[in-house]
This record gives sequence, structure tokens and C-alpha cells, in this order.
Amino acid sequence: LAALIVAGGTGTRFGAPLPKQFVNLAGKPVIQHTLERFLELHPALQVVVVMHADFLDMFQDLVVRHLHDAFASRIETTAGGPQRTDSVRNGLALLQHLPAEALIAVQDAVRPFANPPMLAACYMAAAKHGSGVAAVASKSSLRQALPGGGSVAVDRDLFFAVQTPQTFRADVLRHSYTTVRGEFTDDAGLVEAAGHAIHLVTGAYDNLKITTPEDLQLAELLWPLFAQKWL
Amino acid sequence: LAALIVAGGTGTRFGAPLPKQFVNLAGKPVIQHTLERFLELHPALQVVVVMHADFLDMFQDLVVRHLHDAFASRIETTAGGPQRTDSVRNGLALLQHLPAEALIAVQDAVRPFANPPMLAACYMAAAKHGSGVAAVASKSSLRQALPGGGSVAVDRDLFFAVQTPQTFRADVLRHSYTTVRGEFTDDAGLVEAAGHAIHLVTGAYDNLKITTPEDLQLAELLWPLFAQKWL
Repeated sequence: LAALIVAGGTGTRFGAPLPKQFVNLAGKPVIQHTLERFLELHPALQVVVVMHADFLDMFQDLVVRHLHDAFASRIETTAGGPQRTDSVRNGLALLQHLPAEALIAVQDAVRPFANPPMLAACYMAAAKHGSGVAAVASKSSLRQALPGGGSVAVDRDLFFAVQTPQTFRADVLRHSYTTVRGEFTDDAGLVEAAGHAIHLVTGAYDNLKITTPEDLQLAELLWPLFAQKWL
Repeated sequence: LAALIVAGGTGTRFGAPLPKQFVNLAGKPVIQHTLERFLELHPALQVVVVMHADFLDMFQDLVVRHLHDAFASRIETTAGGPQRTDSVRNGLALLQHLPAEALIAVQDAVRPFANPPMLAACYMAAAKHGSGVAAVASKSSLRQALPGGGSVAVDRDLFFAVQTPQTFRADVLRHSYTTVRGEFTDDAGLVEAAGHAIHLVTGAYDNLKITTPEDLQLAELLWPLFAQKWL
């Protein structure tokens, strides 16, 4: 098992002095929570963190040196690339030693609410189907825009908002990243473009992606509930 | 112009002692904020509030008697029915005096963040196209579930999460509610089933529907930003 934690942000969108993966949530940098969810899941799970080169020292100072050795020793880091796909590709290069049937979860660094059963289900689905992508059904009625300005109702039970983890067999992910170029909004899109089926796993409505100050405030509200339930 | 404010809840889902439309947000019942957005929009705008019969007295006590007379005199109330469509039908019965070209916004009582330009745009669209339904594009990547367990990426720019207000020309809404039976997740779905085109209007990501205690906490966080911007 491995996890590839992608920290895209350099802070510009978040508007904070720190890149969003380092902002404090319940006493720890957001990315530390995210890491701990994976490191706690299984003692042999390896983690690769991909981050803009400018922040790798900060990552060591703010996060890694606060982890106990059994956790810190399982983390490797590498510099991100200009696009998210470049970053994932750089991360995959550090996981070349893993066999084809290894399972690699790609995870947003700013999703600290990755509950253990959801992670386990994503890895399980990847073992069985080649992919396991966390997603939640829409809570709102959905309409599809039509050319010309109209719209049509669609069955909201069929449409899923995609989250991370997006977990894949190593061979599936490698094949996809070596054969497909271009930008995709998520790894599932890229892997699908490479011809692999995407299997959805039940995600969680509280599995927030923290990208705005309001998200962070909501995360602070939700954290005690999450910690009480899962930690 | 008219607004039909539908307060579905009797509190059971919210888990609070009060039905959710009465819970306190920034010092006022949620429904009072919702009402004020419409009453402030235009001095001739009429409001019909549809609510479970058991709570109509509470509505007078907690909300109406705290409004100044120019607002209170423009509010009528009626009892809801067993289904949401029955409630809307009961509300429409109080607006029979309006001409065919009148514009009626159907609004969830528990959506207090209805900003004035959005409301105006919904009424404008209804005047021009017969309908104006607030909706926001998905922020997440979307996938459609396929029979058999797979899924396929869909273009998230084409899919919109529907909110309220859902505003219609009076004749369109009346025709729809007299010809179509059955339950729909929203009025746009019912009006569409009656053969009318649905025109989407840009909604707002902060246009929350307050249905859980977490929603209320988020609303308390967002309220100062909303008030500063719009009130």
C-alpha cells in the first residue's frame, strides 16, 4: 500500500501567508492530519508527498519533525511539477520499486477528513477492480444545461461528486500516466482516458477539500465530530 | 411580484426543539431573514408563507409581530399539505388574484442567503423566459454511475445544482400545478414535466439550505460576510 499526497497550493488562492496545506487545523498543519490518516491505516503503508520545491524545507520543519520516527521514516518527498499531472508523475517515480499489484492512493493534501473505513474501501476496490475512487451523490437536484440556454432535469442519484482518495493498482496508474498526456480535473479522468474502468467508492460528505478560509472555518467546526467518531 | 415561501420542516430531521425555519441565525429566526430578503426587494412584493398548520401561531409570534407594519401587512399564511407539492398548491390558491404575467418565486424558508441581485435575476428571467431557477455549477469533478458498477466522467461545467428561488410566470406555475401530479424534488422538475422550458440563473455558493446543525453553524460563519456585502 502506498499513498501519494499531492499538495498543489502555493497559497495564492487561499490568500493566507502560508500555503493552504500548512494552515492550522485543530492544532496541526492540515497536511499532517491527512498524512496521519494514511500512516495510521497500516504500518507498512508508504507515503510520498509531492509539493512545490520552495516548501519542502517547510514541510520538514512544520510536519515531519513533529511526527514520531515510525511515521516519519515512511515519508518521502519530491518536488511538484508545473501541472498537477506532472506532480503525480514525479511522485510515481518514487514508487517504481512497488510491484504491479501494489495499491496507490492519490490524495489531496488538503483533505484531512479521510476516515479509515473510506480509505480501506478505496484500497479494497482498487485491489478488486483496479480503481477505487471516493465519491458522494449529489444532495441537490441537478439539471444539465442544454445548448441554447435551456436545461433538463437529470437523476441526481446517478451523479457523483468525486473526492479523493482515488486509489489504483500501480500498473493501472503507471500505464495511464505513461500513455496519456494533457490535463484532467482528477486522476480518475486521466485513468479513464487511458482505457481503464473507474469504480466508485462511497465517499463522505464531511471529506472537505480545504481551499478557502470558509472551508477552514467549517473544518474547525467539523473536526471535533470527526475526531470523536474516528480517532 | 410575489414570493411563495415554503417551510416544509416540522423539526424532526433537524433534531432541534424548534422546526428548522425558526432556529436562530444571527439573532433572528432563519425564516425572518428569508422573508426580509424578498420584502426588501420591492415595496409591492407580496409574500405567502406555507407552513404546517401547527406552527402558524408560532410564526406570528416569533416572526410577524417583530416586523414593522409595512412588512407584516404584505405577508399571508396558509397551512401546508402532506407533500411539498400540496403546500405549493395551497400557497398558489392565495395568489389567484394575480394576473397571468405576475412573477412568483418559490423559495425554501430555510435559505436565508438569497442575495438581491440573484433574486432580481430570477424574476427578470421569469419575465423573459417564463422561468428563472437559481443554480450553481458543480465545484467537484462529476462522474455518472453506469449500470453494472462502472462510471464515466461527465463535463462538470454542464451540470448545475439547483437552489431556490425558482421563479415562474404565474400562468406557467398555475398550468403546471393543475396538469401535473406526483412528487418532484423541486418545482423546476414539476414545471418541466408540464412541458415548460426551464431557464437557469446564476445562483450563489453561499445560498445555503439549512437542514442540519452543521449547516446552521456554517451559516453563522457566513452570515457576517453576507450582511457586510448585501445588507
